[in-house]
Amino acid sequence: MRAFFLLLAICISSASFTQVTNTLDLMPIPKSMSIQEGRFNMTSTFTVAVKADPTDSICFLAVNRMFQTLNRRTGLFFHQEIITTQDNSDTASLIIRVKLKTKMEIGMDESYRIQVSKNKITLEAVTTIGALRGMQTIIQLLSNDESGFYMPLVNIEDAPKFAWRGLMIDVCRHFIPIDVLKRNLDAMAAVKMNVLHLHLSDDQGFRVESKVFPKLQSKGSNGDYYTQIQIRDLISYAGNLGIIIVPEFDVPGHSTSWFAGYPELATKPGPYKPGSPYKIDRSEPVSPMKLMQTIQSTPFPVFNPTKESVYKFLDAFIGEMTSLFPAPYFHIGADENNGVAWKQDSAIVAFMRKNNIANTHDLQAYFVDRVQKLVTKHGKKMIGWDELFSKNLSKEVLVQVWSPMSAPTLVQQIASQGNPVILSKGFYLDQFMPAYVHYNLEMPSEEILGGEAAQWTEIADAENIETRIWPCAAAIAEKFWSSKTVTDPMDLYRRLFITSDRLSESGLLHISNYDRMVLRFSAGYSYEDTKKLIDVLTPVKGYKRMFGFITLPVSATYQSAPLIRAADIAWVDARAKWEFRKKVTEYLQTKSKSSEWAIREQLKKWASSYDELKPLFESSALAKEIMQHSKNLSALSTACLQAMDNFNSDTKPTEQWLKDQQALLESAKGSYGEVELAVLPELSALILQQLNPLPASYPLF
Amino acid sequence: MRAFFLLLAICISSASFTQVTNTLDLMPIPKSMSIQEGRFNMTSTFTVAVKADPTDSICFLAVNRMFQTLNRRTGLFFHQEIITTQDNSDTASLIIRVKLKTKMEIGMDESYRIQVSKNKITLEAVTTIGALRGMQTIIQLLSNDESGFYMPLVNIEDAPKFAWRGLMIDVCRHFIPIDVLKRNLDAMAAVKMNVLHLHLSDDQGFRVESKVFPKLQSKGSNGDYYTQIQIRDLISYAGNLGIIIVPEFDVPGHSTSWFAGYPELATKPGPYKPGSPYKIDRSEPVSPMKLMQTIQSTPFPVFNPTKESVYKFLDAFIGEMTSLFPAPYFHIGADENNGVAWKQDSAIVAFMRKNNIANTHDLQAYFVDRVQKLVTKHGKKMIGWDELFSKNLSKEVLVQVWSPMSAPTLVQQIASQGNPVILSKGFYLDQFMPAYVHYNLEMPSEEILGGEAAQWTEIADAENIETRIWPCAAAIAEKFWSSKTVTDPMDLYRRLFITSDRLSESGLLHISNYDRMVLRFSAGYSYEDTKKLIDVLTPVKGYKRMFGFITLPVSATYQSAPLIRAADIAWVDARAKWEFRKKVTEYLQTKSKSSEWAIREQLKKWASSYDELKPLFESSALAKEIMQHSKNLSALSTACLQAMDNFNSDTKPTEQWLKDQQALLESAKGSYGEVELAVLPELSALILQQLNPLPASYPLF
Repeated sequence: MRAFFLLLAICISSASFTQVTNTLDLMPIPKSMSIQEGRFNMTSTFTVAVKADPTDSICFLAVNRMFQTLNRRTGLFFHQEIITTQDNSDTASLIIRVKLKTKMEIGMDESYRIQVSKNKITLEAVTTIGALRGMQTIIQLLSNDESGFYMPLVNIEDAPKFAWRGLMIDVCRHFIPIDVLKRNLDAMAAVKMNVLHLHLSDDQGFRVESKVFPKLQSKGSNGDYYTQIQIRDLISYAGNLGIIIVPEFDVPGHSTSWFAGYPELATKPGPYKPGSPYKIDRSEPVSPMKLMQTIQSTPFPVFNPTKESVYKFLDAFIGEMTSLFPAPYFHIGADENNGVAWKQDSAIVAFMRKNNIANTHDLQAYFVDRVQKLVTKHGKKMIGWDELFSKNLSKEVLVQVWSPMSAPTLVQQIASQGNPVILSKGFYLDQFMPAYVHYNLEMPSEEILGGEAAQWTEIADAENIETRIWPCAAAIAEKFWSSKTVTDPMDLYRRLFITSDRLSESGLLHISNYDRMVLRFSAGYSYEDTKKLIDVLTPVKGYKRMFGFITLPVSATYQSAPLIRAADIAWVDARAKWEFRKKVTEYLQTKSKSSEWAIREQLKKWASSYDELKPLFESSALAKEIMQHSKNLSALSTACLQAMDNFNSDTKPTEQWLKDQQALLESAKGSYGEVELAVLPELSALILQQLNPLPASYPLF
Repeated sequence: MRAFFLLLAICISSASFTQVTNTLDLMPIPKSMSIQEGRFNMTSTFTVAVKADPTDSICFLAVNRMFQTLNRRTGLFFHQEIITTQDNSDTASLIIRVKLKTKMEIGMDESYRIQVSKNKITLEAVTTIGALRGMQTIIQLLSNDESGFYMPLVNIEDAPKFAWRGLMIDVCRHFIPIDVLKRNLDAMAAVKMNVLHLHLSDDQGFRVESKVFPKLQSKGSNGDYYTQIQIRDLISYAGNLGIIIVPEFDVPGHSTSWFAGYPELATKPGPYKPGSPYKIDRSEPVSPMKLMQTIQSTPFPVFNPTKESVYKFLDAFIGEMTSLFPAPYFHIGADENNGVAWKQDSAIVAFMRKNNIANTHDLQAYFVDRVQKLVTKHGKKMIGWDELFSKNLSKEVLVQVWSPMSAPTLVQQIASQGNPVILSKGFYLDQFMPAYVHYNLEMPSEEILGGEAAQWTEIADAENIETRIWPCAAAIAEKFWSSKTVTDPMDLYRRLFITSDRLSESGLLHISNYDRMVLRFSAGYSYEDTKKLIDVLTPVKGYKRMFGFITLPVSATYQSAPLIRAADIAWVDARAKWEFRKKVTEYLQTKSKSSEWAIREQLKKWASSYDELKPLFESSALAKEIMQHSKNLSALSTACLQAMDNFNSDTKPTEQWLKDQQALLESAKGSYGEVELAVLPELSALILQQLNPLPASYPLF
């Protein structure tokens, strides 16, 4: 028994209770900030003046967006209707000074200063982009209480820790429409991210119109691709937000979709059609180990690196795409090529022998080197995933570190060779890790260019992708921007959920889409009761879903299956869990009547979950997948209420009761329908609260 | 006192209680339908076969959309993944037979038959479009209960009452982006509407790219307009749903935006810039009467009908636009030209004298006739608002009847002259009328071509327009489609809110955007409590908002002001009201304990509204606008609880108590912040329930 209790032991840091006011509601936290007593009161006479290059349209567009956001949020209907180049009076409430008209460039000065005094706010920046970052802070400074809307009096000096603060979105496995990308760009801008990296080609689809090689998109996609006009529009939209778009076209592997139209580029003759190269037998479960062996031994579609015609094709293609995408970077992927198809081809083996190429890793290096020369010729810097790193790699090439199995010293090796590092290892959003896990990650001690959160879309689509990326990416954005980090997870989550609501208000659909998916899932039964359950579930962590999924009968071909299961809907990092956790920690520490009452109200709602949802479970196979969670949640909540009664009446629980609860807690640890019960640690803590001494810690999840 | 009680008297038709199963959950209701006992059970082996022209891509796209909707809603993960021309087996679960491959054309055969038997479903249609209408019915037939998902056994024979079933959206007053239009198209298709009429030019903006006259959009808009590529994409999107897009370019009035780039077209020399021509003094209230006088006496911007160069311009313009828009109709507006500017121009007066044109009404007829010849020359049928109707109007011209002040005989006059009539009078969605008011409208006895719901956007924008149009437009769609109508408003609302949820599930953002607007409105205070209040408010009816608005200090210039007030958010037809009404009617009729309990729970929640929201009212001026409603809701709910206690204990209320409640009810009748308390009749009924005899009727709102 002891071991069991230790396992579920309870830890409450006292920091969890103090409202950490020195972070205000800002995300990311500025480099330095001093807060004074008092406030700048917002009224309808609030005005803005801009002292900037009158031709700086990015600046003026941003100022007007900020002004409208303040106007909408306060509901004050400011008398000033629009801010133009004529608005440069020294008597305005907010004066924005920008020295240099600039567009976003990696490594530029993005710093700004804000001074809020009782009657005046100033924002100063060296560059337009610095001013944009500062305007987001001003929006976040807007506060309100019973005396109305105001800005707290602060002095802020801010600048980013890393030059590259990116988000990667895979638009191949599931296509992600332009409007979804734009909403992500808005959200990125709100938390000061500056690179949207689009993974534009993969086995499952080629997602950009090529005019030079039109069969890339016509044969290499299901019709879902971006036209060049849409790409230009997206780039301009991003540019106005101070974000650059970095395109990735993955070669030499992950390239089936190229070969659908142009099989002559491939090592094997084809024919090809876009789709996953993993041929999985639906009829029986596949173990992760077996899958790994398949990945290592299958001759996946791959470019033929020995043909000159391949480089001629890539030259023309890179030429076309580098003129379409103005950013000075070009990502060539270069990941996960196992070399098997090359080894099986006698002409390639002969080529290797003739050219003294020892193995397929060196052949990949040869290919990368050839492609890098083309990218350089077209005036861009090349980027690749960490598999492209080799001793002879040009120092110009940026290396994006991701492999979970890569050596802990990899960053050090790359950095010491002089290649800039973009860190994505630890920032894979598709692993369903809670925000604090990404946030607490130890960063390398070497100097790196920055980092990128990555959203792969094997099990994310246009409807749920916003719920997968946000608000978690905001915590990662803070990690990339802020030199100091807040160690208290409760303050991280406090600010994260404020940020989440603000992103929703200004257009992000993460909350809306979640609600709509729950509505569909509820199948005409009670939406509220269904939501109450899914609110406290989270998808299983890591790649358990991707591996585990194929063992389930409900959907063997997950890439074309609708993403409608509880695991596709449930929040990665359940807000309801963190809100409940706050109450539980307060109750366990203080035993206050108000916290007890709040917890009891919540527990009573959960206790009725199973009875409420029984008809839904009968009706819907999708719902039935999570029935056990509903049963457990109800039973555990009832047990918590008993435990609280026992505690109040100083009644010791019987051995049998404890044994029953242990069995229940064991069952509740399980995943059903690929989701887990997010509030299990908190429910455990309540059940076990009577143990004396109070156990010292319990796991966060 | 008696008069007061009569005013608030209670009417409960017994029909309200019977679950009208003969309508199932269908909207619109089919022409004829017979329901049998039993069901077709949906399982993962559900398959679809299509017997249609293999080149009929509209049909195959629609079949796959329907199939995915069924797949998503049931969560059954059908084994069949996609339906192709090869899928034509006689053993499929659902067989779709289409005789003729067609696109949407007004007046075509849109009929279909559905037969659901225990083991097989068939859908037969003469045309592709009929099949599309039938597929929407199949989606609506999908039901579920504790034995899973199924289709009820039915025979349906269906065909529309009217050939023209439209929705007009004004994209000028506020620009409505393409993705919002596409969501509206999806929703229209779901309820079998077939025309999206876009009001593309008005004083405030010219919203389509012209390549022939590029200053139309560059000078005539704020940059928000559709490119020709976007228009083509929209037309193709609509075409796949069986919907045609009818463009309207409003002439000779409502035309300031044309003149911004081409002032030579106007009667007065200009200069012009896009914007409302109503110059309203912000400093003092304007009465509706005064505004009406202004409308009748102001020389608004208007085309010069006497210049040949104007017709040359229009010829080229109509030529360009008729090739952009493939539909055989071209709407020229022709509404609300008061003729004042013409009367003030001596050259025009001389022209009239020379050409024996008696008055400006005849001059307008001359202009319309000239334009109609151009429209005809470019191969289209002309449409105009009812002001264009005159004795000599060509019979070819379609007349859209809208004017609230027009003679009741207008439809008869137009029809007897042989012009097709599109009825919009009574279907103006921007008047904030509940759905049943539109639904109960008496239709003209003459033969008409059809009708159109109309959404003007002076006080609607991209964020709230879906909440203004839907779900109300679904009730109107039923009126235009179904030959029989259901007289029980409770069954209308039952089906309307089921339809509303389904539209939300499949992508419409009316519910999501409502929630997001409430979130912003709640300003960081309790979202749930704020929603609880706004859920039972509705905007003031008719054009009170448009006229009333200008008297309010919060925002005088409403067209550029953010639409963030409670009146911009609140549902036109509050669902919470209808759900509460259902409970109240049941309680008043049966006095059952379960209905009493449900009502008490609801009343307790409302009773605490004011206490909960006090901090919000202190903080936000926007919220303060509706504070009185919160006070009244809380006080009335408390009174209702007292009344129910009194009733149970057979206690007569005191005179004083009744007097207090009368005062409260009087106050609650008021509009505050341009919204009204939607549940007032139901609360009144509960308060007054003790009166004996029970009053016989109470007003619906």
